[in-house]
Amino acid sequence: MRIGVLTAGGDCPGLNAVIRSVVHRAVAHYGDEVIGFEDGYAGLLDGRYRTLDLESVSGILARGGTILGSSRLQRDRLREACDNAQDMAHQFGIDVLIPIGGEGTLTAARMLSDAGLPVVGVPKTIDNDISSTDRTFGFDTAVGVATEAMDRLKTTAESHQRVMVVEVMGRHAGWIALESGMAAGAHGICLPERAFDPADLVKMVEERFARGKKFAVVCVAEGAHPAEGTMDYGHGEIDQFGHERFQGIGTALAYELERRLGKEAKPVILGHVQRGGTPTAYDRVLATRFGWHAVEAAHRREYGRMTALRGTDIVMVPLAEAVTELKTVPKDRMDEAESVF
Amino acid sequence: MRIGVLTAGGDCPGLNAVIRSVVHRAVAHYGDEVIGFEDGYAGLLDGRYRTLDLESVSGILARGGTILGSSRLQRDRLREACDNAQDMAHQFGIDVLIPIGGEGTLTAARMLSDAGLPVVGVPKTIDNDISSTDRTFGFDTAVGVATEAMDRLKTTAESHQRVMVVEVMGRHAGWIALESGMAAGAHGICLPERAFDPADLVKMVEERFARGKKFAVVCVAEGAHPAEGTMDYGHGEIDQFGHERFQGIGTALAYELERRLGKEAKPVILGHVQRGGTPTAYDRVLATRFGWHAVEAAHRREYGRMTALRGTDIVMVPLAEAVTELKTVPKDRMDEAESVF
Amino acid sequence: MRIGVLTAGGDCPGLNAVIRSVVHRAVAHYGDEVIGFEDGYAGLLDGRYRTLDLESVSGILARGGTILGSSRLQRDRLREACDNAQDMAHQFGIDVLIPIGGEGTLTAARMLSDAGLPVVGVPKTIDNDISSTDRTFGFDTAVGVATEAMDRLKTTAESHQRVMVVEVMGRHAGWIALESGMAAGAHGICLPERAFDPADLVKMVEERFARGKKFAVVCVAEGAHPAEGTMDYGHGEIDQFGHERFQGIGTALAYELERRLGKEAKPVILGHVQRGGTPTAYDRVLATRFGWHAVEAAHRREYGRMTALRGTDIVMVPLAEAVTELKTVPKDRMDEAESVF
Amino acid sequence: MRIGVLTAGGDCPGLNAVIRSVVHRAVAHYGDEVIGFEDGYAGLLDGRYRTLDLESVSGILARGGTILGSSRLQRDRLREACDNAQDMAHQFGIDVLIPIGGEGTLTAARMLSDAGLPVVGVPKTIDNDISSTDRTFGFDTAVGVATEAMDRLKTTAESHQRVMVVEVMGRHAGWIALESGMAAGAHGICLPERAFDPADLVKMVEERFARGKKFAVVCVAEGAHPAEGTMDYGHGEIDQFGHERFQGIGTALAYELERRLGKEAKPVILGHVQRGGTPTAYDRVLATRFGWHAVEAAHRREYGRMTALRGTDIVMVPLAEAVTELKTVPKDRMDEAESVF
Repeated sequence: MRIGVLTAGGDCPGLNAVIRSVVHRAVAHYGDEVIGFEDGYAGLLDGRYRTLDLESVSGILARGGTILGSSRLQRDRLREACDNAQDMAHQFGIDVLIPIGGEGTLTAARMLSDAGLPVVGVPKTIDNDISSTDRTFGFDTAVGVATEAMDRLKTTAESHQRVMVVEVMGRHAGWIALESGMAAGAHGICLPERAFDPADLVKMVEERFARGKKFAVVCVAEGAHPAEGTMDYGHGEIDQFGHERFQGIGTALAYELERRLGKEAKPVILGHVQRGGTPTAYDRVLATRFGWHAVEAAHRREYGRMTALRGTDIVMVPLAEAVTELKTVPKDRMDEAESVF
Repeated sequence: MRIGVLTAGGDCPGLNAVIRSVVHRAVAHYGDEVIGFEDGYAGLLDGRYRTLDLESVSGILARGGTILGSSRLQRDRLREACDNAQDMAHQFGIDVLIPIGGEGTLTAARMLSDAGLPVVGVPKTIDNDISSTDRTFGFDTAVGVATEAMDRLKTTAESHQRVMVVEVMGRHAGWIALESGMAAGAHGICLPERAFDPADLVKMVEERFARGKKFAVVCVAEGAHPAEGTMDYGHGEIDQFGHERFQGIGTALAYELERRLGKEAKPVILGHVQRGGTPTAYDRVLATRFGWHAVEAAHRREYGRMTALRGTDIVMVPLAEAVTELKTVPKDRMDEAESVF
Repeated sequence: MRIGVLTAGGDCPGLNAVIRSVVHRAVAHYGDEVIGFEDGYAGLLDGRYRTLDLESVSGILARGGTILGSSRLQRDRLREACDNAQDMAHQFGIDVLIPIGGEGTLTAARMLSDAGLPVVGVPKTIDNDISSTDRTFGFDTAVGVATEAMDRLKTTAESHQRVMVVEVMGRHAGWIALESGMAAGAHGICLPERAFDPADLVKMVEERFARGKKFAVVCVAEGAHPAEGTMDYGHGEIDQFGHERFQGIGTALAYELERRLGKEAKPVILGHVQRGGTPTAYDRVLATRFGWHAVEAAHRREYGRMTALRGTDIVMVPLAEAVTELKTVPKDRMDEAESVF
Repeated sequence: MRIGVLTAGGDCPGLNAVIRSVVHRAVAHYGDEVIGFEDGYAGLLDGRYRTLDLESVSGILARGGTILGSSRLQRDRLREACDNAQDMAHQFGIDVLIPIGGEGTLTAARMLSDAGLPVVGVPKTIDNDISSTDRTFGFDTAVGVATEAMDRLKTTAESHQRVMVVEVMGRHAGWIALESGMAAGAHGICLPERAFDPADLVKMVEERFARGKKFAVVCVAEGAHPAEGTMDYGHGEIDQFGHERFQGIGTALAYELERRLGKEAKPVILGHVQRGGTPTAYDRVLATRFGWHAVEAAHRREYGRMTALRGTDIVMVPLAEAVTELKTVPKDRMDEAESVF
């Protein structure tokens, strides 16, 4: 069998572990050939690829990033790809394509699959927002990075009587904010799933100070937003170069709290640090299992599906099912956390 | 409501997170009283306890160990406890007891429950070997510690042409060895669930050296054992002080490989380092959820059950079901890992 | 002997280690009494203090922040303090004050010393910019945090063909940027000590891309600044709430590079994460030694001096000497780093 | 100029950083050629080497181990090397050799230098026991690993009323035990430099328990030893395979304490974990500076010397001076630590 593999979309610790696992299972066990397309679908369309043998994946298990590179797909090029799906398979001599990516990548995968290119998908989202799978790799690492940062910030906030507002990733789903906020014991958590009122945060901080606790940490997802009319929040100003200077919610909320509380409130924007570096053991194991099962599915000719974690099992679910809706934080998980505003 | 809580058995990162969560939910939300018995069941039997308020659990979320102390239960004292179960509840004025512990602790909990003491259990096993729950807290931390150690050992083994044999925890179930071995890319993994033949490990190492890879890392669970007749493995000698000097499988296997290979093979016994220290974010979240749901179950008067993770949900399962058999590594998980011997 | 101790100024990992060491040496070895003033000089002036015994410093060695709290000194209150220096010593019954702090704190210490209050100082600066001592505690931790963040960013930048601009602490001295930039292998380092020309950075990045290296990491101290006329850099705009929205150099430089390169350039502002959390072993040892030697100096009545690291020795240097000029990065250290712009 | 480089002796985090730095400075700045001999002096004698260009050292700064491999030198082969020193230089066309290694390596370097091979040495010892330099790279990483392990062990020892005996590296000099013991707040530290009496440790532990502190951590260097007649310490038994089963001091001391105290005492042997893995920022900076200065010295034709840290400066010291005596822990450093027995 000849397998093509590519990584697309935003970065996510564990991508290399999937690639390595695909190669190990396919080459060492089945005697397959594996080729890796460079820079996501762009490499597929441009015919840029290289052979992946055991040596080429040696030492990458614990490395962040992706040895294949990545890029975001342009829609018009996707259409072009679909029109030539079967030709492409023929051109590269691949029996199956294993795209590793997020919602956009998997939607594209489904279209290619429908157009006749055999596909087995591997879901990737650092935000943990793909439905049909309990978890995705990379998420645990991002939560770990955010938690460690808040652990650090708590000690310094405590000593200096300060409110810290920590902005973590999560544009549409607040899983990273929820879990890192719980793990670090954040006193307030703001999610995209529920509009918050800054007045409630102000009240919480004031009650803490009244009880003699002279600091607070608020964990806010980048996609969180205030309820209408509760906060004068104008982000996205245009600077002198004509660029939009994005004023994120973390910074805006820190200013808002400082103004209302009359106490120092500092924003910390974690940003891309959450996406890079050595994946946690959890993410390496999950990524490795995903890769292994993708190859197994390919050999069973179980196309048009993607790997998914269900409880402790890896199962195959239809791509169609996986990308229909975003997995957001449900109300009962917010209740458990106690501090979601 | 008045709730008693205790921690029993071996140490496990996340115990403090459960205690904190129980106190937060019970005291802050329900206005309950919580008392903590010291040193496990011993404190219950001896009447050693203290009140746990919000202040007493401040700052413990990320701390290893248990602020309540722990001890192993003696069987005869358990019988004594069962005979006086209802009296004890009366004596301490508790409506429910939340014991946090492993198989022994939960078996005792079940007996106390049968004897009339309302009980809601929280499972704890660093080995991840309690059935009825997908995972237990502490396990992720232990896997992380073992993985990081093997990450370190790989670089030095590679530079110095050496075989490293790393012994990790897991007396009856090999989950830590399986997952840390997969995460670190160990070339051999030995589990209690499957007797290994050292000759197979020798062959694997020799094949690696023949391919130009001049090192190997073998991850062995402390409960792993060679198939009968394959290895002259005499552990447990008596030293000059009359103590048994336990010669663990890690050390024995390293000697065996060194002798057969004619190459340097070094044992590393990770030991108690796996049990201590700051829990990972994953373990803090799971422990916090367990504590929260235990209090909810208590308020629903759902006794004789314990918290359990099923997929992404926390559910309550009968204690009877949880402790009947050990959750061991199944064959398909060994297959995925590729390197289980 | 009765010793007063206080911590003042910005946060710095290792403050608790100094406090613990002072208490251990003074109480356990000499049988002294130690009192700790709360929130820096404010506690001294307001008479807010508590006795520090061995129990009160138990478990704080590895904890960030300061159990005594801190605050920035107001100048007029300092004058007040100096006028009453001897009275205060009398009032609290202290034979010596050990202030732990930065340039401002030590200048105040010197004034109090001149005014008749026996003082032994312990230098603290996360920026490592106090002269007379080779290193200060906290710096190593900050460099470690910044290095780990850049390690993470490198893997993700590499996979996504991106320029990352990482802003680290260092308002007047660029030690953190220099050492973390060297440790992480940053391709460009900008320091307060040398005005940079963004055109040089642009050239460096373009040469990297020309060589097939499709990413770059630039490490910039918060106090770094472009040479006059090289960059249109207008920070400090006033937002709709009348607050100054500080546009730091990291963000400004990322925009500038993005504009000039026509490639994605992302700012990451590490901020307070560098100040908090568990100190490194190096910082704990240095802080512990400083505390120990401060007590020794107090018992030798060697007042008006502060502890300092010289090579491998801790020596006592006059406060006057320590605070006269800032220790900045000399040219030969920039040369070694190769990538200072 | 054509420069040969090799790494010899035991592993040490930072070796790759030196190699990278040598190549960067020599190739990118001076336009030199650099060749790397494989497996230490063995590669020099056997003519096994490869060219090191910028690409070959890309990405190795943060990696443990050594890309060149290492081996211990056999004495008779060294003599052979000295007899042919000038021939070898001629054969490989190298103008200077930069050996990176410990006492043995530098002694060999000095002999080769005397025999006419231009040499600039870089000292390497994880034990920090080379005189003439304040510190060596790798040591900080080892201290960090040992400290983190003890941080973990303290929490679990505390909860379970246990004595932990942690054996760290340091055969002839106790620097790792001293600094990690101080950093982790070990209650007892045993060094090779001072014979200890187990009775004193027993007394310390008993006093702790009497004060209500129900645990203790003892940090012991592998080369520490009891004073004559104080402990029946018979290590080095021969097992059934004719191998010596080395019973290290950590294990022996744990048994001894358990027997005398009647309390559980557990040994933890950290072993090779201390030698591998990502070097700390401190070690990467020091290693990078050593590499840079070695190339500078080579270009100044300053042969027969090695790089050394003095305060904050890198200086060149004669090899002869560096290897004459071991740098051991002096009495005043033991006094500072308070807990050296």
